[in-house]
Amino acid sequence: MKQKPEIKSVTTIAKGRLLSIEGVELLFSNDETVTFERIATSGPAVMVVPVTEDGLLMVHEYAVGTDRYELGFVKGRIDSGESPEQAALRELKEEVGLGAKQLTYVREMHGIPHYSDFVMHLFFAKEFYPEKLVGDEIEPLEQSVWKIEQIDDLLEHHQINDPRVLLALCLVKKWLEK
Amino acid sequence: MKQKPEIKSVTTIAKGRLLSIEGVELLFSNDETVTFERIATSGPAVMVVPVTEDGLLMVHEYAVGTDRYELGFVKGRIDSGESPEQAALRELKEEVGLGAKQLTYVREMHGIPHYSDFVMHLFFAKEFYPEKLVGDEIEPLEQSVWKIEQIDDLLEHHQINDPRVLLALCLVKKWLEK
Repeated sequence: MKQKPEIKSVTTIAKGRLLSIEGVELLFSNDETVTFERIATSGPAVMVVPVTEDGLLMVHEYAVGTDRYELGFVKGRIDSGESPEQAALRELKEEVGLGAKQLTYVREMHGIPHYSDFVMHLFFAKEFYPEKLVGDEIEPLEQSVWKIEQIDDLLEHHQINDPRVLLALCLVKKWLEK
Repeated sequence: MKQKPEIKSVTTIAKGRLLSIEGVELLFSNDETVTFERIATSGPAVMVVPVTEDGLLMVHEYAVGTDRYELGFVKGRIDSGESPEQAALRELKEEVGLGAKQLTYVREMHGIPHYSDFVMHLFFAKEFYPEKLVGDEIEPLEQSVWKIEQIDDLLEHHQINDPRVLLALCLVKKWLEK
């Protein structure tokens, strides 16, 4: 494996409220110098796949990047001082009104490694009880439940365009087949 | 399905060379108004999974978002005037020095639908012949070949963090099993 490029400088080029653009000046091991742009985000997030007795619980949420409703899983930013596990349990209560007795950590998923440091921690949840917390959702999220046998159809569903949701579907299928 | 929020305005908040941040003012169907930020990128891209007789051909490329080398597939932006298919065939020649006689379109993959309009078109390629084009790579990309039976291991490989690469692995496995 070749030597990693050396970061010579990181400059904030442009700043929004939540997102900012950084210019990263790099020196590659072959002496090439280049400045790449990347997005700095406001910290890590979680995604939770609730595996209920009836199937996978999904939510319909508006996505501003693509300007349409996306079918996906409970997700949200990790608050200051929270562990990923605590954030996962809180988001479940806020978005679908469920506490979970069993939470399994699956893996880290990046957004776009070539553009951003954005990280999302993926969990599977089981064994639920009703508990509602009020979150920061703009509108209540519509819910739908999908049978395990429908996962292959979901992989081709036109309302699922987030590769992290599609990956979560692949991984939960493997997990349930074990 | 509830009514989609109305976009009241889109403002460029900050602009880099390739990326920019937009503020999108939205009116939801429940009369809530909110401004979300999103990233505008410089157009769509392609990813190509080369399925050779020896296995899947992968490349090792530096990712500035996470500041490490990522194991992934041939990819790149679609040039002005190119179709996704033409871009896929060109990137194969530039990044791994191969022309392909067979190209199968798989699906669209978004980056992060909640943050960005970034779209990538996924292809599987087969039947190769040597043909090298010079691309804009900063350094030559190291290559490695992975057997089909190694796909499950690759899904847990620490150097694969791009959910689109992981999704491509899930989908090519399904495709090859058919």
